[in-house]
Amino acid sequence: MPASPGPAAPALTHLDPSGAARMVDVSGKEVTARSAVAAAEVHTTPEVLAALRRDGLPKGDALATARLAGIMGAKRTPDLIPLCHPITLHSVAVTLTPHDTGVAITATTRTADRTGVEMEALTAVATAGLALIDMIKALDPAATLDAVRVLRKDGGATGPWTRP
Amino acid sequence: MPASPGPAAPALTHLDPSGAARMVDVSGKEVTARSAVAAAEVHTTPEVLAALRRDGLPKGDALATARLAGIMGAKRTPDLIPLCHPITLHSVAVTLTPHDTGVAITATTRTADRTGVEMEALTAVATAGLALIDMIKALDPAATLDAVRVLRKDGGATGPWTRP
Amino acid sequence: MPASPGPAAPALTHLDPSGAARMVDVSGKEVTARSAVAAAEVHTTPEVLAALRRDGLPKGDALATARLAGIMGAKRTPDLIPLCHPITLHSVAVTLTPHDTGVAITATTRTADRTGVEMEALTAVATAGLALIDMIKALDPAATLDAVRVLRKDGGATGPWTRP
Amino acid sequence: MPASPGPAAPALTHLDPSGAARMVDVSGKEVTARSAVAAAEVHTTPEVLAALRRDGLPKGDALATARLAGIMGAKRTPDLIPLCHPITLHSVAVTLTPHDTGVAITATTRTADRTGVEMEALTAVATAGLALIDMIKALDPAATLDAVRVLRKDGGATGPWTRP
Amino acid sequence: MPASPGPAAPALTHLDPSGAARMVDVSGKEVTARSAVAAAEVHTTPEVLAALRRDGLPKGDALATARLAGIMGAKRTPDLIPLCHPITLHSVAVTLTPHDTGVAITATTRTADRTGVEMEALTAVATAGLALIDMIKALDPAATLDAVRVLRKDGGATGPWTRP
Amino acid sequence: MPASPGPAAPALTHLDPSGAARMVDVSGKEVTARSAVAAAEVHTTPEVLAALRRDGLPKGDALATARLAGIMGAKRTPDLIPLCHPITLHSVAVTLTPHDTGVAITATTRTADRTGVEMEALTAVATAGLALIDMIKALDPAATLDAVRVLRKDGGATGPWTRP
Repeated sequence: MPASPGPAAPALTHLDPSGAARMVDVSGKEVTARSAVAAAEVHTTPEVLAALRRDGLPKGDALATARLAGIMGAKRTPDLIPLCHPITLHSVAVTLTPHDTGVAITATTRTADRTGVEMEALTAVATAGLALIDMIKALDPAATLDAVRVLRKDGGATGPWTRP
Repeated sequence: MPASPGPAAPALTHLDPSGAARMVDVSGKEVTARSAVAAAEVHTTPEVLAALRRDGLPKGDALATARLAGIMGAKRTPDLIPLCHPITLHSVAVTLTPHDTGVAITATTRTADRTGVEMEALTAVATAGLALIDMIKALDPAATLDAVRVLRKDGGATGPWTRP
Repeated sequence: MPASPGPAAPALTHLDPSGAARMVDVSGKEVTARSAVAAAEVHTTPEVLAALRRDGLPKGDALATARLAGIMGAKRTPDLIPLCHPITLHSVAVTLTPHDTGVAITATTRTADRTGVEMEALTAVATAGLALIDMIKALDPAATLDAVRVLRKDGGATGPWTRP
Repeated sequence: MPASPGPAAPALTHLDPSGAARMVDVSGKEVTARSAVAAAEVHTTPEVLAALRRDGLPKGDALATARLAGIMGAKRTPDLIPLCHPITLHSVAVTLTPHDTGVAITATTRTADRTGVEMEALTAVATAGLALIDMIKALDPAATLDAVRVLRKDGGATGPWTRP
Repeated sequence: MPASPGPAAPALTHLDPSGAARMVDVSGKEVTARSAVAAAEVHTTPEVLAALRRDGLPKGDALATARLAGIMGAKRTPDLIPLCHPITLHSVAVTLTPHDTGVAITATTRTADRTGVEMEALTAVATAGLALIDMIKALDPAATLDAVRVLRKDGGATGPWTRP
Repeated sequence: MPASPGPAAPALTHLDPSGAARMVDVSGKEVTARSAVAAAEVHTTPEVLAALRRDGLPKGDALATARLAGIMGAKRTPDLIPLCHPITLHSVAVTLTPHDTGVAITATTRTADRTGVEMEALTAVATAGLALIDMIKALDPAATLDAVRVLRKDGGATGPWTRP
């Protein structure tokens, strides 16, 4: 019965008891140092990977552009994710590493606030990946962004979490 | 040799001959009707999928919130993707369908402009997926966004393309 | 019956047949000159109205600030209103006129596009009104924005409409 | 005399002594828990209210879309209201309740900062109202947003205030 | 007399006859191809210029970051400049060239619209310059952005203009 | 050798040891009261300066518009400057003073945070200057923004700095 799930049913925290979306109240949470690491993969052709590696020796605008997009994307998280709290980020670092079958992307975010920064890390890797796809799509219209996920987070009441 | 790839080497169109990023000039392109369809998957636990289905019968705020995030994300594409052209979108539709192992997301975008709308479709599905992960992450911190990809695009000089 | 209203029931155009929100497809609509006029009222105390009039002789920053907020707010319409199409505005003019019992606000917007500009005009007067309230709220915390409404619109398939 | 009002004349706090707009300095204010409740009304036709109630049983995208617009609008307050301070919101909740003659909207905002959150609450109800009007305007071009006002605020040096 | 300058007095086009700011109506203007070139200089120490040149061989993130900031800044022009029309840019290119006494910045913008793109070019060079200063300010807190100016513009009723 | 400058070479703090751009980690920095003053000049013709002074007696929309643009621009700093931290500004004041050969612009910004506010002050004067140029460019297409620079900053580990 939609309106009254059994007592064991998990609740989506962003919905109030009537099912309406809300920005959950974090007033009661403690300000603690928090960090998160997220990762993703862009899968593309060997031809494109070779072009990126050429561009990437030693450093090139394609990867620099995607990295910047990731850093700036992290700052836009509360604009993009409807129920995310606006927070003040202390640090964002994004890496893009071309390898044999794709480009590995990671983002690390830090703050001291009442709420975690994993959405900022996820938005950073996703935006970096989309920006990279934008630059390679003329060569590979089938390029794919995969495995956008949190690797680790730390801080807050729930303590450290590492992806199993 | 980084600075002078052989004649057969593919070029990244968003880089000028010196390797600098630029917003490519589309002045010479024709204004034509253009459309794109992109898709993605959010993978999560059976427990969360059950909660989304309850919420989703008949319609619920979690899926509605992600759908809205996708539509609004499409409009933010030129803010997020550094070298994307600002365009006027004629239509954006986003669907989220919970199934046995995840939630399938699609986005269809349309315009009449000098440049395609596949980045808008990709940004829509990625933003919808991130918004969904934001709402389920308390239940499943390992939720993953996968397979963000273009399925089809149409219009412009290159004509229709369907994912092989 | 929610899922199948009778044949005479009016449909909300921003919802698809399943009830999901979408940005409606305007591809098939003609590009025509379109304009809209909206209005609103800010109701406040005689004391505040006197202060605004002093400031307003001949011109002052409080009214200028609200006017600018309205013009800039019109440009942010597609960011704020989830299902609004991004369009290119040709003109926005906002007036604020203090009178005996409040401040009358009007906005006129123009474009040549496939979709109307009444939301831009409404957003302009609402934002101007909110900006004015922000500046007077220390003197009158009960200041109220009322009667945010379209007065006229013109252009498009439906032709001119004047508020009855 | 515009430039030198008598000693008893109330001053607009957002203007400096010369009348120029400024973002007032809150450095000296204490960080305290602050909250605000604002409300508004959208007046429309019985026909539209019936459509919204159908959509609203149990929950529907039209009301969910307006609710989301309100939550996201609250986060855009410092972008829209020229002299508002950027703050970190702890919580935003928006309700929309269709009744006999219209739709009642409320918003509750919370933070711990040096400045109040009533503009965030007002922006939330106004944006929710405008988003709702956007979705019903094809059915009722005369729909009106009324009575955008603060009901209560709490916290800060001035203490609690309730609308008389 | 402020309110009635003599017949020969030049008028600021963004003010209406009463002196109020407005976004001027360009409905009557023709859609033509338009372009603009703007330039600026960042003046800094030989020490910083040496560091930028090292970074800049062959390409480095400091200059790439400033270039991207310029391109993205061009797209934010209507958000930043209150009376600028939102337009669809066809092309933005930004160069940064370290030389003996500073870094020369240029931006070229193109569109086909009813209004020129010189503000977009100016915003691009200014934003690129500010982004560069942000990265060098720890080494040179006195770094200065100078000579932000239009070099050339073309298109529209007034035809080509070249800086004398 | 680009990749390994000698031990005495100054480092650009926004680049990591490999040269990649990053938002530097300020987690370890203390929250202290911080302020900055920046200035700039807009150079234009005597004819335009006369028009601005007429408009500016006592106050006019052209200068008010530029002042507002500066205040709002300060709030957009983290959106524009890729590696800037998002912070909560406590105060922004902008002045524009027409004089014999141009318009002098200053901005003062304040916060209590882990990072300084000189980029916010610089962005305020640059945006105010660009907004002013936008309004006078029909009369003087050669108007120039010059000498965008920090005059003073205070707070943080490095203590007060005054432009030599």
